[in-house]
Amino acid sequence: MRATVMYSAGDVRVENVPDAHLIEPSDALVRVTRAAICGSDLWPYKSMEPTESGRRMGHEFIGVVEAVGADVHTVNPGNLVVSPFLWSDGTCVFCREGLQSECLHGGRYGFGDVDGGQSEAVRVPQADGTLIVLPVGEDDALMPSLLTLSDVMGTGHHAAVAAQVEPGKSVVVVGDGAVGLCGVIASKRLGAEQIILLGNNPDRTVLGQEFGATHVVAERGDEAVERVRELTGGLGAHSVLECVGLEQAVNTALEIARPGGRIGRVGMPEHDTTPTGVAFWKNAGIAGGPAPVRAYIEELLPDVLEGRIEPGRVFDRVGSLDQVPDGYRAMNEREVLKFQIEL
Amino acid sequence: MRATVMYSAGDVRVENVPDAHLIEPSDALVRVTRAAICGSDLWPYKSMEPTESGRRMGHEFIGVVEAVGADVHTVNPGNLVVSPFLWSDGTCVFCREGLQSECLHGGRYGFGDVDGGQSEAVRVPQADGTLIVLPVGEDDALMPSLLTLSDVMGTGHHAAVAAQVEPGKSVVVVGDGAVGLCGVIASKRLGAEQIILLGNNPDRTVLGQEFGATHVVAERGDEAVERVRELTGGLGAHSVLECVGLEQAVNTALEIARPGGRIGRVGMPEHDTTPTGVAFWKNAGIAGGPAPVRAYIEELLPDVLEGRIEPGRVFDRVGSLDQVPDGYRAMNEREVLKFQIEL
Repeated sequence: MRATVMYSAGDVRVENVPDAHLIEPSDALVRVTRAAICGSDLWPYKSMEPTESGRRMGHEFIGVVEAVGADVHTVNPGNLVVSPFLWSDGTCVFCREGLQSECLHGGRYGFGDVDGGQSEAVRVPQADGTLIVLPVGEDDALMPSLLTLSDVMGTGHHAAVAAQVEPGKSVVVVGDGAVGLCGVIASKRLGAEQIILLGNNPDRTVLGQEFGATHVVAERGDEAVERVRELTGGLGAHSVLECVGLEQAVNTALEIARPGGRIGRVGMPEHDTTPTGVAFWKNAGIAGGPAPVRAYIEELLPDVLEGRIEPGRVFDRVGSLDQVPDGYRAMNEREVLKFQIEL
Repeated sequence: MRATVMYSAGDVRVENVPDAHLIEPSDALVRVTRAAICGSDLWPYKSMEPTESGRRMGHEFIGVVEAVGADVHTVNPGNLVVSPFLWSDGTCVFCREGLQSECLHGGRYGFGDVDGGQSEAVRVPQADGTLIVLPVGEDDALMPSLLTLSDVMGTGHHAAVAAQVEPGKSVVVVGDGAVGLCGVIASKRLGAEQIILLGNNPDRTVLGQEFGATHVVAERGDEAVERVRELTGGLGAHSVLECVGLEQAVNTALEIARPGGRIGRVGMPEHDTTPTGVAFWKNAGIAGGPAPVRAYIEELLPDVLEGRIEPGRVFDRVGSLDQVPDGYRAMNEREVLKFQIEL
């Protein structure tokens, strides 16, 4: 089959690999119909050391189940399914708590003998715990929005949950990437009264306003902090969604939270250390991490199916599997916000 | 009047200062009957640069109201009152949210023209928002426990609240100082099932066990992390109360939280930066800061009055105001856990 393999920074290829196939009785074999490039795929695209064997890429996908192992009971051949960006058993203590991203027996796509999602097919481990059946056909017009449930929409939602967004609150979303824009959707959906989007790409911030942002702040650093203070009566925001991960964005997020506020982090951290002193002295809490998307799909799916949210609008380019290398290039150059793959 | 003044690290004196007196119409003048030395007083005791004018010390006290300004309505001369370690107006947006430690018009004792609590008397600003009347006589046997409501018990409680201690949860309290021991009391009071106290002073950990600690871990660093893992089924603790503030203690607190857990910080941070990466990758949240003790007094007071909690047992030495300098020395040398002043 054809699959996306990264060999080093900037070197992404689509090439022939062994066909995906069932190994464990808890596996499902999924023929991929849609996939996506994630902002987190750009980290290795910027920095990966060369390897001879390469690394299989992709963790956001929808597809049709072709076969299942003997222990799989909740999905059947022919089902259209969406996968979270991590697989999980659905039965461990963390899965039962709704924190499937910490599953004791789960893992990541593209590592070990598990295929990546930017491929023609994927062996999905722990299929019962991982996959969710979609009640639509594979060419449904909602497909882009359904695809965001695999990662970006659930991740934006996680930032909002971690930041304790609630009706009537003031929210700042740091970052106008696809996750930040989904954070705007999530904040509006959870009832935020004021949603300030920090971003300076006009195409993206306009989309953010259509998603529900009430204000856009294009400044960065101290100037952004000052603008947010002005917009929040001098106090700062109740909830801050950190959707970038770069040092300056994290620092800004900590600064613009109001005393007693909450910072929800989902941006992959550039650094392992954070200047938490500023948060401590104002009793602002910090939470977040890799999103338990599996837990959120069931909550968000009805809103997608009924058209109340349209996160699929973050995809501004669609291409075939062979166009994936150019998709990486285009996203890395910020020419494209998010690239969708149709197979 | 007599008051405690610190002139440099290790140089604490009790000397004559101008009598405390009303200045603003919102003030109360309080004759101090009990006061305490706080662990945080030891920070300047270890490190303060010499000053000629000195710094007035003390922020934990109980006393009798001697006079009130024209705008004070909730306390009257003759009332026995306890003060939180910060004064607050009780009316600003943060006070109304129960976060009086962030009061827009509040402040600290011992700074500007506000007296310190280790004195014969204190001018209390914003008396209506700050003071709480105690329904007992000034020599009541409960006085030590009531005095802890001014800071240490409320601070231990804040750590537990920030760490989301709830019935059935596993809790680790990092630190066997007075705040940590009050964190044990708070954790038991909130229904924790397992309370692991990290500390290596036998007198203190024995008291911690009497307060409700189910396990004591005397190891530090990686060994402490390993022991907590063993005691929590390999997962780590739901709630971690960081009651020290030193770098190693903070790092340990982050390590021993389980995925999805919560770290409640109340130890004054040694450093402004924290290795939050370990928390991010396991979705562990960090909260806490200076405790809104004013909000907690009303919640904790009935339990003290009815003898359900006995935080006053953290005081292991009582002395007069003139003995305060030796109290600093004894606490700094860990000869004494916490020093109570009887006036």
